[in-house]
Amino acid sequence: MAGSPSRRFNVAVVGATGVVGAEMLKVLLQRRFPVGELRALASGRSAGQRIAFNGDRLEVRALDRKSFAGIDIALFSAGAGISTEFAPDAVEAGALVVDNSSAWRMVENCPLVVPEVNGDDIADNEGIVANPNCCAIPLTMVVDPIRRAVGLERLVVSTYQSASGAGKPLLDELEEQTRIIAAGGRPLPSVYPKQLAHNVVPGGWAMDQDGYNEEEVKIVNESRKILHDPGLRIAVTCVRVPVPIGHGEAVFLETVDPIGPDRVRELLAASPGITVEDDPTGQVYPTPAEVAGRDDVYVGRIRRDPSTRNGIALWLVSDNLRKGAALNAVQVAERAIEMGVR
Amino acid sequence: MAGSPSRRFNVAVVGATGVVGAEMLKVLLQRRFPVGELRALASGRSAGQRIAFNGDRLEVRALDRKSFAGIDIALFSAGAGISTEFAPDAVEAGALVVDNSSAWRMVENCPLVVPEVNGDDIADNEGIVANPNCCAIPLTMVVDPIRRAVGLERLVVSTYQSASGAGKPLLDELEEQTRIIAAGGRPLPSVYPKQLAHNVVPGGWAMDQDGYNEEEVKIVNESRKILHDPGLRIAVTCVRVPVPIGHGEAVFLETVDPIGPDRVRELLAASPGITVEDDPTGQVYPTPAEVAGRDDVYVGRIRRDPSTRNGIALWLVSDNLRKGAALNAVQVAERAIEMGVR
Repeated sequence: MAGSPSRRFNVAVVGATGVVGAEMLKVLLQRRFPVGELRALASGRSAGQRIAFNGDRLEVRALDRKSFAGIDIALFSAGAGISTEFAPDAVEAGALVVDNSSAWRMVENCPLVVPEVNGDDIADNEGIVANPNCCAIPLTMVVDPIRRAVGLERLVVSTYQSASGAGKPLLDELEEQTRIIAAGGRPLPSVYPKQLAHNVVPGGWAMDQDGYNEEEVKIVNESRKILHDPGLRIAVTCVRVPVPIGHGEAVFLETVDPIGPDRVRELLAASPGITVEDDPTGQVYPTPAEVAGRDDVYVGRIRRDPSTRNGIALWLVSDNLRKGAALNAVQVAERAIEMGVR
Repeated sequence: MAGSPSRRFNVAVVGATGVVGAEMLKVLLQRRFPVGELRALASGRSAGQRIAFNGDRLEVRALDRKSFAGIDIALFSAGAGISTEFAPDAVEAGALVVDNSSAWRMVENCPLVVPEVNGDDIADNEGIVANPNCCAIPLTMVVDPIRRAVGLERLVVSTYQSASGAGKPLLDELEEQTRIIAAGGRPLPSVYPKQLAHNVVPGGWAMDQDGYNEEEVKIVNESRKILHDPGLRIAVTCVRVPVPIGHGEAVFLETVDPIGPDRVRELLAASPGITVEDDPTGQVYPTPAEVAGRDDVYVGRIRRDPSTRNGIALWLVSDNLRKGAALNAVQVAERAIEMGVR
């Protein structure tokens, strides 16, 4: 943490009992984030629970408007409603908010940040920095180095999104359905509109407009904002797959100037936070089961797409709880500290 | 069977003990195909096994060059090597071969047929009609009505392919891995290069060239041949998903003339073999778990793709053992009989 080697920061985690909240606590420890006090906040339902942190057992407190007194950094991951309601209270109390919900992402004057792509945008915050969608983060990480080199015309993306992206209830439902199938039964969907185990589901997100769902609209709008390219043409189909952790994306890029697969591999291998696992002649490519728990965005299957002018196809995988959520949020906080924002 | 109400046909099924072979037997019965003798053929390893057919228990015979005496129609589904070696013997013996392997698909003078799309091509056969790849069949079924109405410029396809597409060994491996995961263990891959349960794998097919695998190359080349459009631009990424039966495809079409989603829904709903399950405002779309065992190709998520001129996005699902393999093969045989080819 450049510039403030000894300073410690009081950190609140809102939604500390959720899958992303739990991952935030883990990431703070793993990265030796200079935590002074750690305040675990959640809904009244979860208040009183104890959660492990750095050898302590923290009591989860019920979130209210006074929860942020003395807090320097508030990491929110409790849904858009909670963020809309309570993030302004945290800002009022003097905290920098890093919000993992969708509430503030498309608000003008609210930076939407992937540190490796547009970290400098943090400077223009008014107290809240938004953490992007779990598919938009790895997508922009991977296309940005290519965009900087040869320009980007269009992206066509199909996603393979894990159950944990929808939170603990769907993760639990996938586990339960897996047990039922293993025992020879037929599971009935409850949390999700369709059975997820042994199935793939091109939906489950609220429908937005023109036949697109909210997730697809987020990926389009947020990627444009992160890349500072409001006219970037992006087509997305989002599909939920029976994987616990780790989102995959099949991406087809159309670039302005031509670029070959070897140069793409070089560019990505040299980019922070990206690991290239690729062999155009063999079975080398990343999969969610192997990438879960890791920090980097993994890329493989990099090849020319001869069906269009200047086409490149690739496959990426990222841990949606880490780089797609908790890790990116903590990296935003670290970068804000480095920049002297807090 | 028009034109021959009483005639019966002696049918050989090569690969009768495989997942597609077993489905062929089921489809012949379900469609009341006019079977005289049914001859179940397989490798020496499976010879002597008994399989149920229409109340009988047929003995599986070892395939050899003399297996086809007296056979009218030989349905092959035992891999490209077996088809290359033995299909000419079946033709020599006077049978019409419908071959589900990839061996003959791209051979000139060998029709590659989806009856709803290019059934008339059967007429030009030299004894062998090839059954297309399990993703190319539903893809061409769905894009052909659109192509006929407004022309087709380009297709971008990402697949979600089930374990049974790789045959019984991977289907068994998925089941076994599912049991291990349900019991809290960590499965190790054996048949497939990567764990498939609770994972998605953008490979497993032999690599072909330029970073593409055989499956992707098949989908491109076969779709062009079926549609009689050798210059059609197609980009494909193939991904194996932990689903027992049923292939999904996220498809982005670029058409020559404009067309709206409503007109696409009308066209597809009026096309034989296609069921539209779609609601742009709700959670209505097909999934593999619901479509397995059904004959039609199911289509949903039909919407405009505003990221390109004349873009349409959609999602399709098809039972890869039925329309993707056994059903299409039997339909080819039926059509050949109707046309008087046999």
